[in-house]
Amino acid sequence: MNNKIAGIKLASAAGAICYPERDDIVLIELCEGATCAGVFTLNRFCAAPVEIAKQNLKATNPRYLIINSGNANAGTGEVGFRNAQAVCRHVGAATFTAMNQILPFSTGVIGQQLPVQPFINCLPELKNNLTEAGWEQAAKAIMTTDLVKKCLTKEIQTEAGLIKITGMAKGSGMICPNMATMLAYIATDAKIANADLQDYLNQAMQDSFNAITVDGDTSTNDACILMATGKGIDLTNANTTVINQFLTGLNQICYELAEAIIKDGEGATKLIKIKVSAAKNREEAREVAYTVAHSPLVKTALFASDANWGRILAAVGRAKISPFELNKIQIRMGDVQIIKDGEPASDYSEERGTEAVSGKEINIDIEMGTGKAQAHILTCDLTCEYVSINAEYRT
Amino acid sequence: MNNKIAGIKLASAAGAICYPERDDIVLIELCEGATCAGVFTLNRFCAAPVEIAKQNLKATNPRYLIINSGNANAGTGEVGFRNAQAVCRHVGAATFTAMNQILPFSTGVIGQQLPVQPFINCLPELKNNLTEAGWEQAAKAIMTTDLVKKCLTKEIQTEAGLIKITGMAKGSGMICPNMATMLAYIATDAKIANADLQDYLNQAMQDSFNAITVDGDTSTNDACILMATGKGIDLTNANTTVINQFLTGLNQICYELAEAIIKDGEGATKLIKIKVSAAKNREEAREVAYTVAHSPLVKTALFASDANWGRILAAVGRAKISPFELNKIQIRMGDVQIIKDGEPASDYSEERGTEAVSGKEINIDIEMGTGKAQAHILTCDLTCEYVSINAEYRT
Repeated sequence: MNNKIAGIKLASAAGAICYPERDDIVLIELCEGATCAGVFTLNRFCAAPVEIAKQNLKATNPRYLIINSGNANAGTGEVGFRNAQAVCRHVGAATFTAMNQILPFSTGVIGQQLPVQPFINCLPELKNNLTEAGWEQAAKAIMTTDLVKKCLTKEIQTEAGLIKITGMAKGSGMICPNMATMLAYIATDAKIANADLQDYLNQAMQDSFNAITVDGDTSTNDACILMATGKGIDLTNANTTVINQFLTGLNQICYELAEAIIKDGEGATKLIKIKVSAAKNREEAREVAYTVAHSPLVKTALFASDANWGRILAAVGRAKISPFELNKIQIRMGDVQIIKDGEPASDYSEERGTEAVSGKEINIDIEMGTGKAQAHILTCDLTCEYVSINAEYRT
Repeated sequence: MNNKIAGIKLASAAGAICYPERDDIVLIELCEGATCAGVFTLNRFCAAPVEIAKQNLKATNPRYLIINSGNANAGTGEVGFRNAQAVCRHVGAATFTAMNQILPFSTGVIGQQLPVQPFINCLPELKNNLTEAGWEQAAKAIMTTDLVKKCLTKEIQTEAGLIKITGMAKGSGMICPNMATMLAYIATDAKIANADLQDYLNQAMQDSFNAITVDGDTSTNDACILMATGKGIDLTNANTTVINQFLTGLNQICYELAEAIIKDGEGATKLIKIKVSAAKNREEAREVAYTVAHSPLVKTALFASDANWGRILAAVGRAKISPFELNKIQIRMGDVQIIKDGEPASDYSEERGTEAVSGKEINIDIEMGTGKAQAHILTCDLTCEYVSINAEYRT
């Protein structure tokens, strides 16, 4: 199965903004009539391109997305805003499109001014090379500290016929999306009205991009875009079964891209899946899960395959939630019960604990005993490599 | 100036609970008539000894404190509680004291049962060796991953005469005290009523032990104890000037012990002082300061002496506070202005930024422009050494 989506074309080129020897600018073309929805970072210092993309998405249905890696154009003030506008103006001129039908995106170092000239230089090449087969190349060009490209395709068999979805994402550090993660682009050939598309995207975010963390640092540039070209199945008047079949596929692709980001987390060696259940409400379940997921002590112990579960206990104990009864708490690592009714489980042994945390994937399961809500959060371990990457990122 | 406090005697001994070749049990004796106040962790999985110490402190004025390092007796359930009680019973029997006049404290690995036999073995030696000159030896015996012992003395010249304060603390990782930090013991020869002593301690905590973080992980065992022997100046009816002179000294000793903990933070190479001012209220000022202080990206950049201020900006931007106007934000590193009225400062240069973060001590100063409140938080950098220490702690 190829990853082409009828109505979406992509091209990448080497602008030498930051990485001299690889492509770092991507142009995506949406066909006439395509709809588009987006979710963006809630960081108050959101990047200039994020502000413009949000504005333009409200005003019109975009025809082009222009993306660069290596420079975030965040924390760049008024000059940064004008540079992002200039990029849109040049793309508009090259493609005979209104400026507000262009969505700009940037990812990379914060606080450096984005040069506009590389875009001017690359635009003829980008425009010439647009192709429906451009996904993989584009997924590579938007990478920064990522080690692997993240690009997935699904065909969904619905009662109404086959719907195709392709998505790509980038992200490895400064990952704790609060709305969406740093640059994900998903496209489908289905026909979907704008308002529905936004609803579907909002839903799909919750347990995927909005449920992952590498380091708790929410980026200034997070954005996730869902595009529907309308070249295939028409979902505008489809029945609930068909819509649900589509949504299941969309949720899956978002989850798998989000998981791919965590597996490729900076310096990560392990994927950690934290489930908090029987919680008072979803907010408390998420707070407990994130407190464990952000604990440097939990993350370093798991890096060492050390079943130091006392650190999980300490993290649950400091989570900012309403009071709970200790004797209702259950904690498991994999299949191994650690805490039973708030007490150390009598059949726990260090050997079984070590076995539960030795693999590449670790499941931590916490029951609060205060209600029926649950949350799933994905994270990774904290390693020397993470520190090295981030101590050396700019140098 | 020696560090003796009239009415306080200390001794340490080697119980081989975890560290075979050094002292790991400390006994502190308070003279008859001494008063005592304490603050303890708010972690809901607080350790068994913390529960008992809190209870006993409410019931009576303690005569003995018994402290061990190497085992936290936390997450140990009913068995752990009974073990901590047994330790108190043995100390009581050896010293002819009621069980509830003993305060037990433990620090070390969470989730392992505390052996009682080492205490029984060491009690005769501990009792024989009690001496007012025992502070330094005790400060060493309570260390876990600490590299340096933390023990300070001050003589405060008041209108009413000289007051002496000596304090010791331990702590290096799992440091984000929410009430008090992992084991600090402060004693004065002044005479102070119980209620006042608790007030003074609560005040002194706020900008010292409750304003530091190494890793955001609040310990299950945090406790800070303030003892007043009444052998010296009587503060029970002293005038405001004298009380304030004493409080200034107490605040200083708490701050310096707290700073010593951060300087000795696990793997730390730099002391980072974060000041948030012109904030809407103290809670928001603290939230912003802690968000910056907990950012792994900020901490790794500073480890590398990299003036990557975009990461500070991103952290301020994701802090969970009420809306603020970007154009009122000012950020400085040392003397170097980075953000002026929400825009990159025009006179900023990479050279000046690098200079500001190259030393052993880094000052980050953030003005919010939303009010008059401020907060100071101390933290340290995040290094490969931190990861190594915590990946290897139990192995």
